[in-house]
Order: sequence, then C-alpha cells, then structure tokens
Amino acid sequence: MIVTLLTDFGTADYFVGAMKGAVLSVNPRAQVIDITHEVPAHDVEAGAFTLRAAFETYPEGTVHVAVVDPGVGSGRRAVVARGGGHLFVGPDNGVLGHVYERVGSGLEVFQLTNTQFFRQPVSPSFHGRDVFAPTAGALSLGVAPETLGAPIDDFVRLPAPAPEREADGSVSASVIHVDRFGNCITNLTPRDLPAQTGAGGPVVILIGDGEVRAFRRFLAEEGSDESGAARPFAIWGSAGLLEISVFRDSAARLLGVRRGQTIKVLRTVD
Amino acid sequence: MIVTLLTDFGTADYFVGAMKGAVLSVNPRAQVIDITHEVPAHDVEAGAFTLRAAFETYPEGTVHVAVVDPGVGSGRRAVVARGGGHLFVGPDNGVLGHVYERVGSGLEVFQLTNTQFFRQPVSPSFHGRDVFAPTAGALSLGVAPETLGAPIDDFVRLPAPAPEREADGSVSASVIHVDRFGNCITNLTPRDLPAQTGAGGPVVILIGDGEVRAFRRFLAEEGSDESGAARPFAIWGSAGLLEISVFRDSAARLLGVRRGQTIKVLRTVD
Amino acid sequence: MIVTLLTDFGTADYFVGAMKGAVLSVNPRAQVIDITHEVPAHDVEAGAFTLRAAFETYPEGTVHVAVVDPGVGSGRRAVVARGGGHLFVGPDNGVLGHVYERVGSGLEVFQLTNTQFFRQPVSPSFHGRDVFAPTAGALSLGVAPETLGAPIDDFVRLPAPAPEREADGSVSASVIHVDRFGNCITNLTPRDLPAQTGAGGPVVILIGDGEVRAFRRFLAEEGSDESGAARPFAIWGSAGLLEISVFRDSAARLLGVRRGQTIKVLRTVD
Repeated sequence: MIVTLLTDFGTADYFVGAMKGAVLSVNPRAQVIDITHEVPAHDVEAGAFTLRAAFETYPEGTVHVAVVDPGVGSGRRAVVARGGGHLFVGPDNGVLGHVYERVGSGLEVFQLTNTQFFRQPVSPSFHGRDVFAPTAGALSLGVAPETLGAPIDDFVRLPAPAPEREADGSVSASVIHVDRFGNCITNLTPRDLPAQTGAGGPVVILIGDGEVRAFRRFLAEEGSDESGAARPFAIWGSAGLLEISVFRDSAARLLGVRRGQTIKVLRTVD
Repeated sequence: MIVTLLTDFGTADYFVGAMKGAVLSVNPRAQVIDITHEVPAHDVEAGAFTLRAAFETYPEGTVHVAVVDPGVGSGRRAVVARGGGHLFVGPDNGVLGHVYERVGSGLEVFQLTNTQFFRQPVSPSFHGRDVFAPTAGALSLGVAPETLGAPIDDFVRLPAPAPEREADGSVSASVIHVDRFGNCITNLTPRDLPAQTGAGGPVVILIGDGEVRAFRRFLAEEGSDESGAARPFAIWGSAGLLEISVFRDSAARLLGVRRGQTIKVLRTVD
Repeated sequence: MIVTLLTDFGTADYFVGAMKGAVLSVNPRAQVIDITHEVPAHDVEAGAFTLRAAFETYPEGTVHVAVVDPGVGSGRRAVVARGGGHLFVGPDNGVLGHVYERVGSGLEVFQLTNTQFFRQPVSPSFHGRDVFAPTAGALSLGVAPETLGAPIDDFVRLPAPAPEREADGSVSASVIHVDRFGNCITNLTPRDLPAQTGAGGPVVILIGDGEVRAFRRFLAEEGSDESGAARPFAIWGSAGLLEISVFRDSAARLLGVRRGQTIKVLRTVD
C-alpha cells in the first residue's frame, strides 16, 4: 500500500529519513512517497492546501501523513480521518482542513489515542516519527481507524468557510492560497458556481480592492490582450479551483489580496 | 515496474506529488523514482542532458517521464519513445533529444494521441499530471507504445548536431551542458574519437577562445601542475562524455564557452 | 528489500538519479528511499550524524548507502559494514563512524574489494554510482558482506571519542553535531549518565565557555522562565542524544561551542 508524506521539515535533516523508516518498520512493503517537505515552516494552511491539491490523484486506500505541527508537545490532539476512499493521519490543527471540506459527506474523524503502534519513548518534539508515521504504517497494513480512537466531530477546521450561495444568487467564497506567482486560489469548484458562469460566461468577481470580469480558459489567451494592461482574470486552475491571475504579474499584489480574504461572485444579467 | 520522473517543477508545490499519484492511480504497483525536479525552469536542454546522464543506469523496461514543458497548452505534440530497452514520455520539444541521440538506431517515436489513460478533464496547464504521468503508468503496466499513437520521424531534436568525423580526420562536436562548476560537457563519447587519442594520448581541442592540449585521467592529476597556472584539460566525465575542465576554476568562464558552441578535436601527429 | 541513500550530491544534478538506477539495475525490486542528499558538501561528520539519527527507525535488513566522499578517486578504501541488524556501504572515511559507535559490539566491517557488482568502467569521480549503489543492490538481494572483501578492524572512526566515565564519577563526552538552530548535540545517551541525573535531576554540564545546570523535559518549559534571560539547558533530543539548547536562541553561539568540543558531566551531590 502507498503512504504519502507531507511535512514542513525540509529535506536536509534526518527528520524525513527517520519518518520513512518508522513507516517501513511497521510495514516494510509500504511504498513511501514524498508529496513535499517544503511547506513553509509552521504554515498549517499552506500544508492543508498542498495536501488537498495532491491527494485525489492517488488510488483509493492510500494513507496520507500530514505533519505541519507547530503545537507538537503542547497537548493538541492527533487524528486519523477517512474519506473519499483515502486515509489521513496528522495533528488536529487544521492541516487536514481542506481535505475535510473536499471530502464532504462520508468523512469520519477519529482522535488518535491508541498508542499501540507508537515508537517508544515518544519524543515530545517529534511526533512525525513516533506517532504519525508508525500509525500510517499500521493503517497501510489494514488496521481500521475505528481501533485507533473514538470518533469526534469537533476536529479543527480551517478558518475559511466553505463557499455559500446567498439569497440574491451571489456566491461567497475565500482565497485559500496565494502561490509564489501571486495567483489567488479560491475554494470555488465548478459545482459552486451558477451554471451560466464559467469559461467565457458572464461573471463579476469582487476580490480585494478590485473586481474581475474576465474568465479565461488558457493562460495564454490573456497574452494577446490588445491593450497591454495587466488585467486580472479568473481561470479554472490545475488544482480544480477558481484562481484569480494576472498574466505575468502578481494578482495578489495588484488586487491587494491575502490568504483568507473573502470574495464574492455576482450573478450577472444574462 | 519502475517509473522515473524528471521535471522543472521544484518540490515545494503540489505538482510533483500530484504526478506521482497520477502514475500510481493507473499502476499502484509502480515504483516511482525521482530523478530530479530542479531542472532550471523551462530549460529544455538542461533537462535533456540530465535525463541522458541518468537513464542508462536503470534496468530495461523502465519508463522515464520528462516534463520540462514551456509550451504546455500551446498545442505542441506529446510523444512516447522506445529505445535502448527503455520507454520515454514527454512533450515533443527536445527534452528527449539527448536520449534520441544516445539511443541511436532502433529508436521509435510515437505521437501520443490516445487519450484513453489521460486524467479528465485535462488541465491546459498541467499535462505532467493529466497526460504524461498516467500514460507512464499505463506503459509500466505493459501497454504498447504502438497503441498510443502513430509513429513519427519529425520529432523535435536538439539544436546540437551529433559529433561528426571530418574528411581531414578531425571531429566536430558540441558543448551540450555547462555544469555549476563551469565544466563544459560535450557530446563526445569514446567511440567518436580516433583511437590514438584518449587518456594520455595526443589531442588538441579547439573550444571557445582557446585550445586544450592536456588529457587527464583524474581530476587530482591537474592539482600537481608545477606551474600553478589554471590550465584547461579534457577528461572523460562521469556521464561518459568528454568534459573540458579547469582544476578549481570555471572552464566555461576562462575559455568563453557557452552551451551549444561547437568544438573541434584535431588529429595530432603520432 | 529497502535501500536508503544519504549523500552530499544535492538533488539538482543527475547524480542521485543515476545512483538509484544503479541500485535498481542490480535489484529491480529494491525499494529505494532518500534519507537526504543535502549533507553539506564534503562534510563527513554531518553525514555521519544524520545517518546515525535516521538508520535505527528502519527495519532489520535495510541496506544504507552513505556517500560523502571528498577523497573519491584518491585511493581511500571502501567498506561494507554489518551491525544492529542493518547493512551499510560507503567510503572508509568516517561517514559510518557514528553508526559504528552506536552499533557497538557485534559490528563487522569488511573492506569492499570484490568488484563483481561494480559498474564498469568505474568512473574515478563517481563511486556512488559505480561502486556503492550496485554493491548495495547486491546486498539487498542477500549477497553476504563476507563475500565482498576481507574483515578489517582499522576502519576509520570519527575523531570524537565515545563517552567515558572518569574515576571521579564524571562523564566526558563530545559535541558531535551543531544543528541549524545552534543546538549542540552530544554523543551522550541515557545509558551513559549516572542514574541520578536525567530529567529534573541534578546535573552540571561544563561545555564551551559555560556551564549548564538545568535539565528540561520539554522545550516549552523553558519558555516560562520568569527571568527572561536566555539560559542554556540540557534536554534529551529527538535523536536520542543529550542536547544543549537555549530557548529561541543559539546555544552554540552563546556558549562558544563548536562540533568536536568535549563536554563534562559532573556528578552532583544528591
């Protein structure tokens, strides 16, 4: 079975190497796959976004370990989750928050309290190796999440609320990620928007200091803009989410957008 | 079966993690191996060199995915290639160019048009995940390249021509890579040079602003140079290619050499 | 079987990709795992520490390849080692030194002279690919270390001596690693200290320009220090070794400590 790893540990130290060994000691036949170890240090939301954007490409039954864990050793809970055919393990601090939202109904979350698979003694500063990795190894062997702790429903979600359709037909959503190019990635999927919006359709998006009226299918389209002005546009990005971009410039900077800001998609007259 | 990945995506984002999942969703038993994801962004030739220098160490039947793809979404073709006992998949932009040259006779290239294994909808900006990775997964399951598209012979080669023996006995070749230490790596293999040249043998190489007359077996030999001057020398590098180096200095800078420049190996009186 | 790789090659070049292929060409069913490739260039001791801190989490029978090899091509010996249920292969330059110390009795070291599995021709500058990786592949297939060379006992250890109990009851030890936060990691394990020392117990540690009297169980404890002064303390770190730390500051800088320095743990009146 496949076990993926996502952390903010970097790859220069022994941390990731030790986690891999801890998975393999429990299940020597697991295939251990790096998603990334370069989540910005302690940036739980960035880790949550990256996991959400990557996990769905994996086959059913994959176990995903997510360790961005600034509160390690402080008593925050640990969780195991099941949803969308995948299993997840990590701290209960929101790092699985975007996965929870994406999986939607059918999600089950368990507080990880069964220490049976933990490496002893558990280091107070390295639960990645001693708690999460061996538990992932056990899950990859077929151990049922139900046996690892009690179900909970007060697990930590992310601050960004799910997109919501308002009475006036508009949709409120959030910027959940700003990538290194300044693209503003929202939590809007195609099913959140009215049918008449979309590629080429009429749309007005209020975001930050501005509004966006263009909807593009390809990044390159915008390059042929006759005016030459840097005009923001919406596009369905490769993560399957609506992004606000500016051709060869930073939409976040031009529009004054930060992660967590709300946006509004207005119904247009059609 | 083994599937290797080579990209310019870096490892901080979700891109590589998503590609790995896309391979594994088609073939959960594939062993996915990173060659590198740090090819300089959009540097097709650097990617081509790295793949050429790494692929031959893999066992026969390995599938190599190479995605350095500045033209993604623009309509450039995609290809699957077979040669030297290996399979390759990537954009038709030259990223497989050094492999083509290395494999030589027996090379077969197919235009990848069969969408059967693609992830739908195909993102216009992320063919690594939606086109190349799942096709590699299928190839690793034994799907025949012939079933993925028609054979072509106008695939994109690299600008550097293969080494050529001239009428006067000299050999023309190219610098195909300048590494970070300034070593100038040519496309010359031992079989391209006259038998009397080689380690310790007589050789004159015209390159950039200078000429090289020394042929060394070990880097360390040059360290004992009594004169102390930084003298360029030729050496068979670890990629199996002739390199021009200067001990503890940049041959590229001292000789004014850039990637793509031609060099000439003269027959010497022996 | 599992083969881990630890090098100072970085991940941008073809070196690591070529090593993986060289393992897999000998044993296509090996699971190849990256520990790290970002050991500081030529820093044998840093590589030795990282390997020591990671290897024990792997299952018995794992083969570990360690290539930090500034003397490649100079005639330094190559070794295969067996101990603690693991196998190791690398240059005989100390990169396995911390493993030797950790494994203790039962360690066996063989000079790698059997060229049967080497890739030919062996590049004078890339033994990682041509010597160590294929030998690791062979070991992962069950080839016995005894068949690869004669046992030796003059293999290269690290300069830092093992901890030693003095006649007066004090313990001498060494700083074997300074991490990027300035934490000073010693070679002291719990079994090296008198029983009465330890978490919360009385201890005086002479190190660099200062002495350390506090022993903490959690990093966070120190944060509640009423005085606010940056006070160094000892803690059992996640590598299982005694570390000297300062909360949110560099213990190495404050105490004037460099790798290799000796420290002394004094018996206190209890």
